[in-house]
Amino acid sequence: MIQAKAYAAQDSQTDLAPWDFERREVGPHDVQIEILFCGVCHSDLHQIKNDWFPGVFPMVPGHEIVGRIIKVGDHVKNFKIGELAGVGCMVDSCQVCENCKEGLEQYCFEGNTQTYNNLDRSGVPTYGGYSNTIVVREEFVLHVSDKLSLAATAPLLCAGITTYSPLRHWKVGKGHKLAVLGLGGLGHMGVKFGVAFGAEVTVLSTSASKEAAAKELGAHKFVVTSDPEQVKAVKSSFDFILDTVSAPHDMNMYLSLLKTNGVHICVGVPPEPMSIAAFSLLGGRRSVAGSGIGGVRETQEMLDFCVQHNIVSDIEVIDIKDITKSYERMLKGDVRYRFVIDMATL
Amino acid sequence: MIQAKAYAAQDSQTDLAPWDFERREVGPHDVQIEILFCGVCHSDLHQIKNDWFPGVFPMVPGHEIVGRIIKVGDHVKNFKIGELAGVGCMVDSCQVCENCKEGLEQYCFEGNTQTYNNLDRSGVPTYGGYSNTIVVREEFVLHVSDKLSLAATAPLLCAGITTYSPLRHWKVGKGHKLAVLGLGGLGHMGVKFGVAFGAEVTVLSTSASKEAAAKELGAHKFVVTSDPEQVKAVKSSFDFILDTVSAPHDMNMYLSLLKTNGVHICVGVPPEPMSIAAFSLLGGRRSVAGSGIGGVRETQEMLDFCVQHNIVSDIEVIDIKDITKSYERMLKGDVRYRFVIDMATL
Repeated sequence: MIQAKAYAAQDSQTDLAPWDFERREVGPHDVQIEILFCGVCHSDLHQIKNDWFPGVFPMVPGHEIVGRIIKVGDHVKNFKIGELAGVGCMVDSCQVCENCKEGLEQYCFEGNTQTYNNLDRSGVPTYGGYSNTIVVREEFVLHVSDKLSLAATAPLLCAGITTYSPLRHWKVGKGHKLAVLGLGGLGHMGVKFGVAFGAEVTVLSTSASKEAAAKELGAHKFVVTSDPEQVKAVKSSFDFILDTVSAPHDMNMYLSLLKTNGVHICVGVPPEPMSIAAFSLLGGRRSVAGSGIGGVRETQEMLDFCVQHNIVSDIEVIDIKDITKSYERMLKGDVRYRFVIDMATL
Repeated sequence: MIQAKAYAAQDSQTDLAPWDFERREVGPHDVQIEILFCGVCHSDLHQIKNDWFPGVFPMVPGHEIVGRIIKVGDHVKNFKIGELAGVGCMVDSCQVCENCKEGLEQYCFEGNTQTYNNLDRSGVPTYGGYSNTIVVREEFVLHVSDKLSLAATAPLLCAGITTYSPLRHWKVGKGHKLAVLGLGGLGHMGVKFGVAFGAEVTVLSTSASKEAAAKELGAHKFVVTSDPEQVKAVKSSFDFILDTVSAPHDMNMYLSLLKTNGVHICVGVPPEPMSIAAFSLLGGRRSVAGSGIGGVRETQEMLDFCVQHNIVSDIEVIDIKDITKSYERMLKGDVRYRFVIDMATL
């Protein structure tokens, strides 16, 4: 077994603290990565706090992982020692179902194996990226370029693919009006991709103070949703809303901003169910859809797209000893736009 | 003015009763129809009872209208005295917005003018088909064939187009698994169209007693949704669910029956908002969509399709004096599948 160290939550009530544990040996199809940076996702906190479902503890969060390959199994074909690599939200899936075969491992019929807070296919808990090293089968390892900031690449593995994938799936691009709801880790990536794909991007926010930041990211327009006049002016005007908000919000108001045939795409996960009036959908053949991360192939495509278009996340690098303080700031929305842990501080 | 008679509700608390009123004179672009049959839609009752919004009273319900043309305006091009004709849920729209130009008058930017319980574009209340005659601008009049039962054609004007339109929009057909939720006026038409379009049709019902009826309509499969084993067997199996239910129901359970990328299409309108967990959508890129009736052009296409494929509604013809009793039976689901008023009984 490989000795590893990490920051872990021992239960849902306790702050993260240093923890030593064991990773599996590098198997013939495995890649071992020395983790250099790991992004801090809002879902890390949701999972530590059992917001969605009871967690597997001790829990080592982190699914925005980048680092350097330090060992490869005998049968590994696509990775070499010394290369940069990334790992996102999944580390395994059945690999044989219809969805896996189509590159939609995130929707594996058996369920994919999450990078942490899950049991792997042999029943062993998975531990995430707030750690010095990880062992992952090569099919779930991504190639990472040295042309972009490595720390700022980490959030692409979740926040990036989670916004890239639905915009690609619904073919959002030139001629479309895209609203991005929420300007956090996901939202700011949604703006960057929306702009890169050629859409007219409007940021919807409750807070007028975010306008300058939204425009800096490339957004063309900004609407303060607490101002009824501004909201009225964009009624029935968007082809798509990319909804990155994981707090409760008034879905029927947002649906009224969609054109006929418009799609409201949820990528955030509010803990409470959404309340949707049938008339909000019928009056314009509107849809509410959900999208979860992206498949491995599409994640690689996104990383390559980011290299071509010089897209990374806007980040604030932190010391892992400040993780609890960083969670507090994240909850207040006091981060532009993603915390990334420098794993050298572990 | 034209003297007309009808059954009307004087307010939301009172049963329908005979009422005399005036229709506008036949204008140069108008068609006057002697109403022979009018279908009884669940939404008639919702509107009389102010379930959705405060109504315009006195209210003459009815938007599944068929009859014979008895007068045409000087500029009417497409209709002649003596022909059969139909009128559905709309009698006007702006005719110039993007949606109207595309034949989506139901989604007119200004709002379409509903056949009853609405004010027309000059501010005069509209009165529906529980009446001996109606005057409608020709753009909103449909050609009705004499090859099908006229009484059984009436429900096509709402129940028919409301199910035909979304199945066409989402291109439901061969190779698709379609579930129809609810086996009433809308649901039974959904089954007939789904079968005609080549889909494998499953009826989802809480009541095992409806299986024979569903199969008679052409459904290939039947699932009793109160039986957990039967539900489990169809998890993640449908491409589309056509949801015709206007009572509260467990959306998250139904969403779990959709395949990856599956679409749950709402055409019924429950009075309370639906409660939808984000995970129900994210876990398979599923959507909940709504669809409202259909445009005029598509309604004519649907009527023509029905002639070609010998499709009509299964009906029970009633005397208008039994309307209140019929509403009571409709509320209990005691009708196969649509009441149609014989207007000769007025």
